[in-house]
Amino acid sequence: MALDKGLVLMSDTRTNSGVDNISTFRKMFRWQQPDERIIVLMTAGNLATTQAVISQLEERNKAPDQRHNTLFEAPTMFQVAVEVGRLLRDTIQTSQCDNGQEGEGRFTASMILAGQIKGMQPRLFMLYPEGNFIEASPDTPFFQIGETKYGRPILLRGYEHDMEFEDAVKLLMVSFDSTLKANLSVGMPLDLLVIGRDRFEPLHEKRIDKNDLYFQAISSMWGDSLKEAVHALPEYSFED
Amino acid sequence: MALDKGLVLMSDTRTNSGVDNISTFRKMFRWQQPDERIIVLMTAGNLATTQAVISQLEERNKAPDQRHNTLFEAPTMFQVAVEVGRLLRDTIQTSQCDNGQEGEGRFTASMILAGQIKGMQPRLFMLYPEGNFIEASPDTPFFQIGETKYGRPILLRGYEHDMEFEDAVKLLMVSFDSTLKANLSVGMPLDLLVIGRDRFEPLHEKRIDKNDLYFQAISSMWGDSLKEAVHALPEYSFED
Repeated sequence: MALDKGLVLMSDTRTNSGVDNISTFRKMFRWQQPDERIIVLMTAGNLATTQAVISQLEERNKAPDQRHNTLFEAPTMFQVAVEVGRLLRDTIQTSQCDNGQEGEGRFTASMILAGQIKGMQPRLFMLYPEGNFIEASPDTPFFQIGETKYGRPILLRGYEHDMEFEDAVKLLMVSFDSTLKANLSVGMPLDLLVIGRDRFEPLHEKRIDKNDLYFQAISSMWGDSLKEAVHALPEYSFED
Repeated sequence: MALDKGLVLMSDTRTNSGVDNISTFRKMFRWQQPDERIIVLMTAGNLATTQAVISQLEERNKAPDQRHNTLFEAPTMFQVAVEVGRLLRDTIQTSQCDNGQEGEGRFTASMILAGQIKGMQPRLFMLYPEGNFIEASPDTPFFQIGETKYGRPILLRGYEHDMEFEDAVKLLMVSFDSTLKANLSVGMPLDLLVIGRDRFEPLHEKRIDKNDLYFQAISSMWGDSLKEAVHALPEYSFED
C-alpha cells in the first residue's frame, strides 16, 4: 500500500499443497543499503518458484564480485522490477517446460515489489508470472496478490492516501482478518513492514502471531464494530 | 439466508460473456401454490444452462397432465432438490459431451434452492453442477453462489439467526454493495425476496435498481461507516 508518508506492507505465512499439507514460510523479503536504498519483495503462488527467485537474488547479493547484482546495482526501482520479473518468468518457464513432466500452470507465482532508492520516489509494483508488471498510481494505490477478494472491499473503502501509518496498519489487519476468517489458505503469523519516505530502513517491523494481543483485540472487536455499523445504517422498510 | 423467521434471498442480474458482452437477466425464479408451498431457485454460471433448467421446470409446470410436475408434486423440498439437481446435471452433460465440440467446463452452473412446503420447515439448499447438493444448517445458515468472496466477510460477521428481516436485507445489501464495488461481473439491479415462515407467499419482494434511493443511501453511507468503524478500533502503536 502506497501512502503519502511511505509504504505499508503486510503478508501472511501460510503455504499449502492441499489442505493436508500446510506449512509456514515467510513471504516477505527485504534488502537494504544504509541511506541509499530499501527493497522489499512479497510473494504469492508456487513456493518452489518464489523461493528459487529469492535464492537467486540472494546469491547474486552474496557474491557481488562475480555477477551483476540486481538489487543493489540497478539504478532505479523500475530496473529492479525488470530484472526480478525476468527471473520470475525464467524460473516458471524452466519448471513448466523443461522437466519432461506435466505441469502447465502449476508453477506460477506473482510478486509485489516495493521500495525506494535515494533521490527518487518510493515505488510499488505488481509482477505477473509472465515477468511483466504494473506500477501503483494515485488511482490504484495498493496491490494484493494471492487470495485477494475477501479483504478487498475494506481496502477499497478504507484507504486514504494521506492516512497515518498506524491507521493503515489497522486497515491492513482488518483486511487480513476478514480473509483469515473466510479462507484456510491464508494463515497467521503475519509480517508487517512500514517504510517511511526517505529513510531507507524500516520505520517499523513486526511479526504478528496468533497470540498478539493487539491483533486479537482488533479481530474480536471488528465483528461487533461491523454489526454496529450495519445497525447504524438507515432502516429498511417493507413499505415503499 | 435462513433465519428463525424465514428466508431472505437476493440475486443480481448481470450476465457476461467477456467484459464486452454484458446483459441483464433475472436469476431468481419463484413458484407457489397458495397456502401450500413456495419454491425459489437462484442461479449462477452459464446462462444457457440455467435457462434450460428453468424452462424445463416451467414446461412441466404448464403441462401438468402430460408429465411429472417436479415443483408442485414433490412431497418434500428434499425431493425438489433431487429433481432439480438431476435436471441441472443432465443439462450440463448434454451441452458438454454430446455436441461434438470442445466445451469441457464451459457449461457449468450452480443453484440455490429455497422454500417451504406446508407442514414442514423452510429449507435452503445449494446445488452443485454434478447434481448433488448440501443443505443449510444452524452452523452454516447461508449460501452464496457465483462471485462469492468479496461479500462473504460481512455475512460471516453480521449474520445472526434471530435477526429481523429488515436487518437481514440491510446486511445483504451491504454484502452485494461490496461485491458491486469490486467486480464487474456482478451488477444492478438486484432482486430481493423475503419469505416468512408458514406464509407460502412472499412477505416482501422488490427489484432494486440503480436509482433506488435506499440502496444509494446504504452504498454511500457504508464507506463512511466502515472508516468510522476502523477508526473506533484501538490505536496501533509502533512501540511494543
